[in-house]
Amino acid sequence: MLMKYRLFTPGPTSVPEATLLQLAKPVTHHRTAEFRKTFAELQELLKYVFQTQQTVYTITGSGTAAFEAAFTSVVSPGSKVLNVTNGKFAERWASYGKAFGVQVEELKLPYGQHATAEQINNTLKSGGFAAVVLVHSETSTATTCDLQAIAKVVRQHGDVLLIVDGITSIGAFPFKFDDWGIDVAITGSQKSLMLPPGLGYVCLSPRAEAAMEKNKQSNFYFDLKKYKKSIADSDTPFTPANTLIEAQLTSLRMIKQETIEGVWRRTQGCAAAFRAGVKALGLELFSQTPADSVTAVKYPSGITDKDFRNTLKKDHNIHVAGGQGTMEGTIFRVNHMGYTDIYDCLAVLAAIELTLKKLGKPVQLGAGISAAQQELSKLF
Amino acid sequence: MLMKYRLFTPGPTSVPEATLLQLAKPVTHHRTAEFRKTFAELQELLKYVFQTQQTVYTITGSGTAAFEAAFTSVVSPGSKVLNVTNGKFAERWASYGKAFGVQVEELKLPYGQHATAEQINNTLKSGGFAAVVLVHSETSTATTCDLQAIAKVVRQHGDVLLIVDGITSIGAFPFKFDDWGIDVAITGSQKSLMLPPGLGYVCLSPRAEAAMEKNKQSNFYFDLKKYKKSIADSDTPFTPANTLIEAQLTSLRMIKQETIEGVWRRTQGCAAAFRAGVKALGLELFSQTPADSVTAVKYPSGITDKDFRNTLKKDHNIHVAGGQGTMEGTIFRVNHMGYTDIYDCLAVLAAIELTLKKLGKPVQLGAGISAAQQELSKLF
Repeated sequence: MLMKYRLFTPGPTSVPEATLLQLAKPVTHHRTAEFRKTFAELQELLKYVFQTQQTVYTITGSGTAAFEAAFTSVVSPGSKVLNVTNGKFAERWASYGKAFGVQVEELKLPYGQHATAEQINNTLKSGGFAAVVLVHSETSTATTCDLQAIAKVVRQHGDVLLIVDGITSIGAFPFKFDDWGIDVAITGSQKSLMLPPGLGYVCLSPRAEAAMEKNKQSNFYFDLKKYKKSIADSDTPFTPANTLIEAQLTSLRMIKQETIEGVWRRTQGCAAAFRAGVKALGLELFSQTPADSVTAVKYPSGITDKDFRNTLKKDHNIHVAGGQGTMEGTIFRVNHMGYTDIYDCLAVLAAIELTLKKLGKPVQLGAGISAAQQELSKLF
Repeated sequence: MLMKYRLFTPGPTSVPEATLLQLAKPVTHHRTAEFRKTFAELQELLKYVFQTQQTVYTITGSGTAAFEAAFTSVVSPGSKVLNVTNGKFAERWASYGKAFGVQVEELKLPYGQHATAEQINNTLKSGGFAAVVLVHSETSTATTCDLQAIAKVVRQHGDVLLIVDGITSIGAFPFKFDDWGIDVAITGSQKSLMLPPGLGYVCLSPRAEAAMEKNKQSNFYFDLKKYKKSIADSDTPFTPANTLIEAQLTSLRMIKQETIEGVWRRTQGCAAAFRAGVKALGLELFSQTPADSVTAVKYPSGITDKDFRNTLKKDHNIHVAGGQGTMEGTIFRVNHMGYTDIYDCLAVLAAIELTLKKLGKPVQLGAGISAAQQELSKLF
């Protein structure tokens, strides 16, 4: 039976057909007037997605590469940062201090929880911090925070920079770099921005740019000062993944056409529908403050990760993610970002119903998708 | 008049249609058995191209990213390296010392020249070097060296590592990592390996791996120890540009089918034909030891870079590269690497003849392509 491939991992996510076709076009050179025009348009569209008037730098590399560019460009060796540690990605950023001579104080929280503005405010009161590092949407636990409120309190602590991993928030749900007063934000191409992996993006506030100018950290490929110099001429300091950049334009134009508010609304609508659906099936969410970009669901007793995800894959050609690290086997994760619509959301829910039933779990077929449908109706 | 687009810049180079179509396939996730199989095959094919039994690491990033991974993983802060500085890329690698606390002694040569084994041997005699860094094929000047002879003398200096930028040599003309005793070699995806930019590759000898284990340099995204750990499971430590990796397989299988010796022979044949052609037109080569991957040609008096390359582009839809830095306006460069055959070589020569004539240079039409044809006949 024909069963279309449906990718529901929280990155890489599906890429629009128009963008894929762009990737199949003959390769051109990047030191041309045409490419500079492309790169200039990319810049404007990235600013729109980040909701900023600041420059957004393009790094050829993964989201981790973007984080490294941000971290090593603005955080000085010997300084102290506060890292909110509440998941696998937050743990990765905490380990950056060790590699780059930065003292990292951690605000540790159980998986599935996130810091409040009050907690961050209280921790910062001890003083001496150069920056706060946090993950806006911790992909490993599908957990978000009130970033606007957090930014507000960080702003009250002088020159403390707010460094935000927005890899699975920017372009998925509300994120306003300028209005909220974020200092550093990063994302990757393979999440909400509807492209394969290979590009990372970094935005710096004027305060972060000032910190960068004074910083003595050792870097080269990740030295954003080099990117800043090049971007004045709509260029990059090192050979960029130019076919990905050209294709990124196609996807970002789609976001512009839908409007960023429209994209946020759709993603939030799908997430709300999916959460309502799995709850109606008697399943529990893992996160105490769920992100709208990805949902983590606890396995009910008697259902193993292997059986569940294998059945979804084999019977339904649907790929959802499992848990990472110690969460492996205890949760599955479903993406709502990027090139996915409400009927994709219904499809994955329907497949989950059928899979649970096949694996011997008593489910009322249609209960999940009906509950989701109630939520989806709010979008019309 | 229909005029097909022909890309002759020394990277990005043309990508085979089959590879482009692979890039247009729907995106899948990379933490799967299928992708691990792909990645394992990539590994075998890269070993074939590098002519090694050692592991070849895949970095999502440009060739500079691959160099940084190599340099920061094996060269310790405080140590001294000998950098052969004879072009724009060699100059870039010389500047790495400053960023990473490494003392760089330079063997400086005029553009268009390269170091001999004797020069390197003499310089190393002063002692205390941890490594020699050189560019096998300096793309900015289209100049190569006798790497096999150089490797032989470096081997006589104890633990001195030989770090080779093979970005425009590996997969273009003879390069034998194991047989020649190279310690570190890097290349990028967008040159001989027939893929768009976005992936870099690094190979380490057992001696280089041992140096890496002892090294205390600060790195993270570029820490090859992390890649070594992951590759045991055919995986990468950070999200790879997985669609590029899948497409790389298509291009590398083509190289395997042609055989690496066949690829070298074709590239060398095209380069020899092109050099014979431009000489027959009265033009001069820039390099004293020309590389077979790219040819740099001096502009004759009265021909400006702007007129020449604009005419090639507008009349013939052919894109060749100009000179970089102080060489700008004095040379043009034509690629022979990757997805390009003998008739592409004839086409660019024919277009150069027509362009020179149009710009008022007295040329005997057909003289260049006839001379090239003599060389090409040796391939049959």
